[in-house]
Amino acid sequence: MKVNNEHYRTIWLDSDEAVKIIDQRWLPHRFEIERVSTHVEMAAAIREMHIRGAGAIGAAAGFGMYLAVASSFESSVDSTLEQAASALKASRPTAVNLEWAVERQLRALRQGDTLAEKKRIALREAQAIADEDVEACRRIGEYGLDLIREVSTAKQGEPVHILTHCNAGWLAFVDYGSATAPIYAAHDEGIDVHVWVDETRPRNQGARLTAWELGQHGVPHTVIADNTGGHLMQRGMVDLVIVGSDRTSVTGFVTNKIGTYLKALAARDNDVPFYVALPSSSIDWAMRDGLTESPIEQRDGDEVRYAQGLIDGDFQRVLLTPQDSPAANYGFDVTPPHLVTGLITERGIVEANEEDILNAFPEKRRGHAA
Amino acid sequence: MKVNNEHYRTIWLDSDEAVKIIDQRWLPHRFEIERVSTHVEMAAAIREMHIRGAGAIGAAAGFGMYLAVASSFESSVDSTLEQAASALKASRPTAVNLEWAVERQLRALRQGDTLAEKKRIALREAQAIADEDVEACRRIGEYGLDLIREVSTAKQGEPVHILTHCNAGWLAFVDYGSATAPIYAAHDEGIDVHVWVDETRPRNQGARLTAWELGQHGVPHTVIADNTGGHLMQRGMVDLVIVGSDRTSVTGFVTNKIGTYLKALAARDNDVPFYVALPSSSIDWAMRDGLTESPIEQRDGDEVRYAQGLIDGDFQRVLLTPQDSPAANYGFDVTPPHLVTGLITERGIVEANEEDILNAFPEKRRGHAA
Repeated sequence: MKVNNEHYRTIWLDSDEAVKIIDQRWLPHRFEIERVSTHVEMAAAIREMHIRGAGAIGAAAGFGMYLAVASSFESSVDSTLEQAASALKASRPTAVNLEWAVERQLRALRQGDTLAEKKRIALREAQAIADEDVEACRRIGEYGLDLIREVSTAKQGEPVHILTHCNAGWLAFVDYGSATAPIYAAHDEGIDVHVWVDETRPRNQGARLTAWELGQHGVPHTVIADNTGGHLMQRGMVDLVIVGSDRTSVTGFVTNKIGTYLKALAARDNDVPFYVALPSSSIDWAMRDGLTESPIEQRDGDEVRYAQGLIDGDFQRVLLTPQDSPAANYGFDVTPPHLVTGLITERGIVEANEEDILNAFPEKRRGHAA
Repeated sequence: MKVNNEHYRTIWLDSDEAVKIIDQRWLPHRFEIERVSTHVEMAAAIREMHIRGAGAIGAAAGFGMYLAVASSFESSVDSTLEQAASALKASRPTAVNLEWAVERQLRALRQGDTLAEKKRIALREAQAIADEDVEACRRIGEYGLDLIREVSTAKQGEPVHILTHCNAGWLAFVDYGSATAPIYAAHDEGIDVHVWVDETRPRNQGARLTAWELGQHGVPHTVIADNTGGHLMQRGMVDLVIVGSDRTSVTGFVTNKIGTYLKALAARDNDVPFYVALPSSSIDWAMRDGLTESPIEQRDGDEVRYAQGLIDGDFQRVLLTPQDSPAANYGFDVTPPHLVTGLITERGIVEANEEDILNAFPEKRRGHAA
């Protein structure tokens, strides 16, 4: 998408030796590019959230595996890859895209004999992961556009109000985003859309990243406290909720940023359609009960005790709580399938149940000839 | 309650000419007392939230009316009272306690002929409003204690986890608080209680005030982002939700701090009891459909765009959003009666419906002989 009218992806190959990423920690106040030249640096960049979001960290893991091969000796490439695989998979626990990208690289690399071959394979695979992410999000945008167009038509051109939580925007993927792709597509087609942006405490990915993205693209939006969505839905001020997902079980349980479940409950209570936009790389084909099986990241309580932002041109954090009050910081929650109107995938919109998901992705059926 | 082991109310008479209040804007970082000597200052203190919370601003309005009389001439007392009444009622729109206290003063003052009489009456009434608020909260504590004791017994002494939203603590009343009164009573009785404190963006009354109160009283607590409660309830980590209310209709619709409704939905979805603790001064006896009739305050969007806190011993605010992203700031939402397990009042625990509420307060039935 565009940053100051120049086209960017969130991650790209800089040279044989390095990858570049948008360092999201400083947005919306500073736009910075970071050079990453080892898999160790890439794992740290994921862990410390220089780059975040399901699709973006999947691509980062793909490139991380490439950097591991690229910096390796012939004799040690297998052990380097093993280390890189486990470091990258462990860098964040919840999004399934990390495992998915690492396993995909390992599978592809089995075809290579020499170091040179492995390097070629790893690069090709990393690029493919990134390109497929872009293409999946583009298609999600097209399928989701149909939904928005329908609402717009029903409202006779009155603004379509869409609520989103956290950032499932292009910054969370390689380009387009999942939840935002339909919004950008609708805006580009001239449909009058307006986005309610949940700020998404404690890290404010909505207030910082989604608001910035939408602003750069000229999409009308309003930032709200996370407490607000229920009230807006009660008053008929939300036409559609679209969120992303870090891990959706094959049975339709949606793990996403903490607070998503509360919005799903409010949507159900007020008959507002609640859609989850995700590429199939975020589907966990082995997980059945998302409520008990989904790993939920716990982060430092200081992210809750403090708020970080801009003051006099500097990044600072202010203490919100009493000095000695403890805080807990759960990163994700799980929305059960019965609260989900539909999953917007690169193969179309499917219901959040195993049968419909596997009908759209028949190659994932157990026993399917690969 | 105690502040550094000294007993305080949130508001008290300082002398014939002035009232003192705890200035809550600087908590938890600085404990400051403010002297208020006119009704104009009192209206400003309410509007700018030096003092906030349903019961506390009711008492503040009562004392504000007294200050209006105390500073008036015999010839102008009626017009001064009229101005004071409308300024105080308009200072915050949502909590019904303001109207209630002002109307109660006006009714009482009709019994006075001379200025001296009126001054005596207004002082007596202001003190009565404050004292009755304390007594109502103390009783709410006793009735709510029974609920907590039951849970503690059922859990064989394992900690009882209570989630609360915003601050319905003693700072929001004259003493004890509504939602916190049962918690303090349980803690004092030796029951093992632990409180999940919603930070309550955008003004962080939970992170700032509830956490501070509980800390001063030695009650174990953990601050969480507002997004977190649903996840905790799904995982069985909340035994009871207790919140306050700024205005509850006689039919049981609960207007309270924005975000309350989302927690009520999660409580219902997970079979967690959801109680609203409130003195009858917060009941709107004329309102029937809280969803459409309850006035919802809208505040400055900058409260959402910025977060305020402590940095290097100074109060500062940091910008969270892009410089040019707009924000909306709705202060309250409405929880419908079917999501409320019970109302904890000074006359016991009643169901959130007109029949049960009026059975507990029969003097409020239409046609009841006053």
